[in-house]
Amino acid sequence: MSEHIVSSYDRDLEVLGRRIAEMGGIAEKMLAEAMDALANFDIELAHRVVATDQRLDALQREIEENAILTIARRQPLAIDLRECIAAMRIAADLERVGDLAKSIAKRTVKILSEARVPRAIIGLKTMAEVAAMQLKDVLDAYAQRDVERARAVWTNDSELDALEDSVFRDLLTFMMEDPRNISFCTHLLFCSKNIERIGDHTTNIAETIVYLVTGESMPTDRPKGKSSSISPSVETDEPSQ
Amino acid sequence: MSEHIVSSYDRDLEVLGRRIAEMGGIAEKMLAEAMDALANFDIELAHRVVATDQRLDALQREIEENAILTIARRQPLAIDLRECIAAMRIAADLERVGDLAKSIAKRTVKILSEARVPRAIIGLKTMAEVAAMQLKDVLDAYAQRDVERARAVWTNDSELDALEDSVFRDLLTFMMEDPRNISFCTHLLFCSKNIERIGDHTTNIAETIVYLVTGESMPTDRPKGKSSSISPSVETDEPSQ
Repeated sequence: MSEHIVSSYDRDLEVLGRRIAEMGGIAEKMLAEAMDALANFDIELAHRVVATDQRLDALQREIEENAILTIARRQPLAIDLRECIAAMRIAADLERVGDLAKSIAKRTVKILSEARVPRAIIGLKTMAEVAAMQLKDVLDAYAQRDVERARAVWTNDSELDALEDSVFRDLLTFMMEDPRNISFCTHLLFCSKNIERIGDHTTNIAETIVYLVTGESMPTDRPKGKSSSISPSVETDEPSQ
Repeated sequence: MSEHIVSSYDRDLEVLGRRIAEMGGIAEKMLAEAMDALANFDIELAHRVVATDQRLDALQREIEENAILTIARRQPLAIDLRECIAAMRIAADLERVGDLAKSIAKRTVKILSEARVPRAIIGLKTMAEVAAMQLKDVLDAYAQRDVERARAVWTNDSELDALEDSVFRDLLTFMMEDPRNISFCTHLLFCSKNIERIGDHTTNIAETIVYLVTGESMPTDRPKGKSSSISPSVETDEPSQ
């Protein structure tokens, strides 16, 4: 390979990495703002989250196209090929994180008129904080190609699953206490599932980082918190890719 | 390109097509069996659905690897490049269809002990029948590269969304009638969301077929049924890719 080709290949990868970092920043912001909008019933902010999603979609398409063009043009092998594949996979996961945040924002707009039991939202906020931290960690792990940090993110996902179990039980209790809570709490159940799925996509990204650096795949079994028989955590709702 | 290369390229594409057809058949069967297991509380069948999912995961990995190797080796352009990209995208959607069916099967095992209001499942069965028909249609459309049929699948997804709205309202009513229904019906709510998401993945496949044949992307707005304020259909829960 001539030096010229090597350097344009490096430039291709650099552009991919920058676009992924941009997507990661947008996805983090969407999650934080969607939760603020939900906690404060801030409709304007919810609409902004919804609008932001287009940028994420456009970036994903751009990354996919660039990665495939790079594979076709440069015929990379081994680690270099994995760089392109990893970029495509991570972009797909980040795009879905944005969609899930957008979904929470859309529910906020929907349930405004029937807002009840504010304490029902507290558990969701805790879940979202853990999900946000995990997302930040995995993006750092990708930037630094840090396999150990990626593995830690993968393991910590069980915390989010345990939190979802607890939120699920609380929401069920609020529903049983007063049937007028049923519709509102049902929407919150879906929001909590969305946050749990953001955790699953974060875990997918962790797996991709391990594959990128080592060439190996992670075991197919995900770490899962203990779940009770009434638990919503059916762990295949959003599986690894 | 020499004739030798052209013919091995055709063979690559043929293998990809066969694998996609195999995945489609497995995904269809998983959905049908998961619904049978739920309707009849058939635990053995539910476990079989869960076990089948591994085959789907393995096929998806194989298709992704083969498509990328084909891109790297043959450096295809235009329609040939789109064939490889489409195969990867469709495989990812079919893998998720299987996961969602597996999720329904896992819930069946979970809710067995608290099975209540059998009529609550009727609406879900109707939804699953529509989803199965849509999935069959889109797989046929892919096999025949039939853009019109793909567009019809895309449009018909609104029927599934409207059905989900109606199932959502029914389940909420059962919960309000008797708090002892709340836990069981909540699990069914998630099952109904899973079926709706199977519809979304089917619609993704329809979009991929249009892209494959025409090189054009579909509009980003999905067809959606009319939704009430208590509707669960927040349309970004599982968006187009």
